[in-house]
Amino acid sequence: MQMRKAVRARVYKFDATGEISAGPDSLAGEEPLEIQLNGEQYTVTMRTAGHDVELIAGYLLSEAVVTAMDDIEEVNFSAGIAPDSTRNFNVARVRLRPGVWNPEAAPARNVYTSSSCGICGTAAADAVTKTSAFPLIPAAFHVEDQGEYEFPQLLSAARIGELPDRLRETQEIFDKTGGVHAAALFAVGDDPDAEPELLVGREDVGRHNAVDKVIGWAMANHKNGLPLRSTVLQVSARASFELVQKCAMAGIPMMSAVSAPSAMAVEYGREVGVTVIGFNRKGKFNAYSYPERVA
Amino acid sequence: MQMRKAVRARVYKFDATGEISAGPDSLAGEEPLEIQLNGEQYTVTMRTAGHDVELIAGYLLSEAVVTAMDDIEEVNFSAGIAPDSTRNFNVARVRLRPGVWNPEAAPARNVYTSSSCGICGTAAADAVTKTSAFPLIPAAFHVEDQGEYEFPQLLSAARIGELPDRLRETQEIFDKTGGVHAAALFAVGDDPDAEPELLVGREDVGRHNAVDKVIGWAMANHKNGLPLRSTVLQVSARASFELVQKCAMAGIPMMSAVSAPSAMAVEYGREVGVTVIGFNRKGKFNAYSYPERVA
Repeated sequence: MQMRKAVRARVYKFDATGEISAGPDSLAGEEPLEIQLNGEQYTVTMRTAGHDVELIAGYLLSEAVVTAMDDIEEVNFSAGIAPDSTRNFNVARVRLRPGVWNPEAAPARNVYTSSSCGICGTAAADAVTKTSAFPLIPAAFHVEDQGEYEFPQLLSAARIGELPDRLRETQEIFDKTGGVHAAALFAVGDDPDAEPELLVGREDVGRHNAVDKVIGWAMANHKNGLPLRSTVLQVSARASFELVQKCAMAGIPMMSAVSAPSAMAVEYGREVGVTVIGFNRKGKFNAYSYPERVA
Repeated sequence: MQMRKAVRARVYKFDATGEISAGPDSLAGEEPLEIQLNGEQYTVTMRTAGHDVELIAGYLLSEAVVTAMDDIEEVNFSAGIAPDSTRNFNVARVRLRPGVWNPEAAPARNVYTSSSCGICGTAAADAVTKTSAFPLIPAAFHVEDQGEYEFPQLLSAARIGELPDRLRETQEIFDKTGGVHAAALFAVGDDPDAEPELLVGREDVGRHNAVDKVIGWAMANHKNGLPLRSTVLQVSARASFELVQKCAMAGIPMMSAVSAPSAMAVEYGREVGVTVIGFNRKGKFNAYSYPERVA
């Protein structure tokens, strides 16, 4: 068990007639990464190795532990011994800037276990929503007495329809293994008809991880930093609640998915002001929230 | 936010030419479920409502908290108040049989955080593997001095190739929403050429949940109980490490996936004796571990 993005393995290919052929095949790498915060274990996640610092930064932003790369002082990957006696670097010791995180106040150990209030009878849904440091544009879609708001148009329908193919072009591991998810962040300019610029594409066996890696990249490298106002995120597979939440936490106003969104993803998108696009295939797509951003 | 398997929502359909049509659409339900064990919060998971007791039972088996339905004495769904003032039943208070679970010994709060040993430098991989109460057949594939073992052939290649279509036929929510994963358990008999019997099919926005619901169903209803020796599991989407682990925990000897397996899923399958099948499409498939079970 070593750190590998793709792994060679022997495979037996069967067809319905009973014909069998054997040969090598490439599989997507999947390994646990343990994240420790200030010496305390925080979580362990399964991920495809590579871009681990980005993954950690994006994950901690989504968890409302940090709000910027500066909140992370050091990430130390220690060499563990894998069961096959090889060394790996699957334990990440993260040192946060003093005062950034108070484990007593928020002893979060996974995405969902942070602050449930089942005892007082409030819906568990409250437990899973996080508060972003960055208000989206406009800041308060759901405030009734806000009056009219001029929505900025981000991208034309034609440009949005091109995003899945552009994401696909970034997928190196998928080309080898057929077994990973991907996310890519695009910068949009003033002209919604102009081709958006690909900023970064990342792959992972986990959908969430691919988005975390992209957001982590932006935390370190985006020229304007967070919130990521003038960007659009394209993801493979479906649009889950958690992915919309990650967009909200990073300030990304539009997320496009190749497959379906869930009901909660759409409801949450409406609540926090994220345009949720689904079934983006062959130039066609559905907008489930804030279609006004589509030019 | 109510308990709904599928939800109606207004959608704006765009095509690349800029044509827009608006109308109702169905979305897959996705809501948090908080699980409390003996009064303590254990985890919160996002899931599609329905078959929650099965989900909880299968999940707790996968977590090595329980080994049989009898270990669960009571599941009490309390009515929380959702943000829109509707009532939901998204908090499950589980009472376990005395002695079944010791939170001091295993204070697991999510699938991966249970028993990590990052401090001593051992690979985090050790933290994510659980020990099943049920040895697979044969019990010790990987014991070198075991000698020859006659593998029982489970199913013919033709029958395995039919499983994805048979899974598809169970997918009611997918038909409406296009946005859920599914898993189905089939019983195999003595003749690998005979059509395996569909025991149960379950859907969920989460792959893991769909498998947990299937295993939970079997814990309650399978005539021979666990381990599920003479069964095959078919899942939509890809074969991850966690799904192979769930098979191992329930004693399911063969898992077939429509998409790719990860490297760790295959490595783990080889270790625990699960036949991992991937890319099962149009009657063809790949076997990555123990192809001897394919007749």
